Amino acid sequence: MRRTRDAEKTRSEILQVAFGEIYEHGFQATSVNDMVAKTNVTKGAFFHYFPSKNDLGYALTDEILRDMMLNRWVRPLNAYRNPVQGMVRTYRKLMEETTDEELSLGCPLNNLTQEMSAVDPVFRDKLRGVIQAWIGETEKHLRRAKDEGYLRPNVDVRMTAEVAVMMEEGSAALVKSLGDRKVYWSLYDGFRLFMESISSKPNREA
Amino acid sequence: MRRTRDAEKTRSEILQVAFGEIYEHGFQATSVNDMVAKTNVTKGAFFHYFPSKNDLGYALTDEILRDMMLNRWVRPLNAYRNPVQGMVRTYRKLMEETTDEELSLGCPLNNLTQEMSAVDPVFRDKLRGVIQAWIGETEKHLRRAKDEGYLRPNVDVRMTAEVAVMMEEGSAALVKSLGDRKVYWSLYDGFRLFMESISSKPNREA
Repeated sequence: MRRTRDAEKTRSEILQVAFGEIYEHGFQATSVNDMVAKTNVTKGAFFHYFPSKNDLGYALTDEILRDMMLNRWVRPLNAYRNPVQGMVRTYRKLMEETTDEELSLGCPLNNLTQEMSAVDPVFRDKLRGVIQAWIGETEKHLRRAKDEGYLRPNVDVRMTAEVAVMMEEGSAALVKSLGDRKVYWSLYDGFRLFMESISSKPNREA
Repeated sequence: MRRTRDAEKTRSEILQVAFGEIYEHGFQATSVNDMVAKTNVTKGAFFHYFPSKNDLGYALTDEILRDMMLNRWVRPLNAYRNPVQGMVRTYRKLMEETTDEELSLGCPLNNLTQEMSAVDPVFRDKLRGVIQAWIGETEKHLRRAKDEGYLRPNVDVRMTAEVAVMMEEGSAALVKSLGDRKVYWSLYDGFRLFMESISSKPNREA
């Protein structure tokens, strides 16, 4: 029992350390030796948990990245009676909390997708799964918004979820490319205006 | 005179061939030998025009990529009395003309930015210059739209230009990540709805 808990803890620690290294340097530029050097495990132990570097990357996508995107963008919406207002406030909160380092590194999901999707079909499918989950879970909240009368009756909630995720992800990409935090405020205004344009009630930020 | 024209033609041919190779395989994965093998020039001639592979990449950014983005997204707007209508139609036309190969390769500007901006500050600044030109030229058309009464009086044209470019670029990135052309239609609807929401007149597509 204790050994199982320890094993889970070790595995989880390796994934967390690997996430940081890969986020900073990219997947291909991070070696197993780099990751082992940052943890307290031996290389043998590393390969016990992850038979190859790719296996680690897949676990990182399924377990860390997926939860990260849903924790950031979707789960906070549970606290809002009006999910549209929740989406606008969550965008703003994430924007304001983004550190300069995160701003210049960009979104880890976007980075790994750009780097690995064309190289490895297993990565490609797993990364697509994360984006699909992000869109699908956003859609559920928008369905709730529509059912409760916060969206105009003719709004397509699937379309809106796809556009919202495109704007959430596209904003981080453009701000990274331009290296200019001020642009984030314009993109936030655009996101807010888009969400207001499909809302049935005025929904302005205070 | 003839020799100068020939030299310009050779240089331009090298850039065009290099663009195709780099678009398909990435900048770092494309060697000077790869590019020379696809043209009729010797390696010596290549280095006559471009002292290093990076010099070729910089010229490609300044000369090919910049024109490509402006030719695709901005210059067609000159043909429209209402630039907002022009932006929506241009988005749709580019979406419909995107081949399956281009869809899976994504936007060449976005790819080169993701690959090279963190690696080389000269690339980073030149690629930022292309995005800034794209935003800046879009802003001029939106200014014209506002002056001629096509936008609501309180619309910030700079904000709108930044959001439009984010949506234009973010759409290509999301469709590439998902590998699903159908999503493009949702994102087009979102772009159209956003542009309509800031317009002073109904502006629906036929």
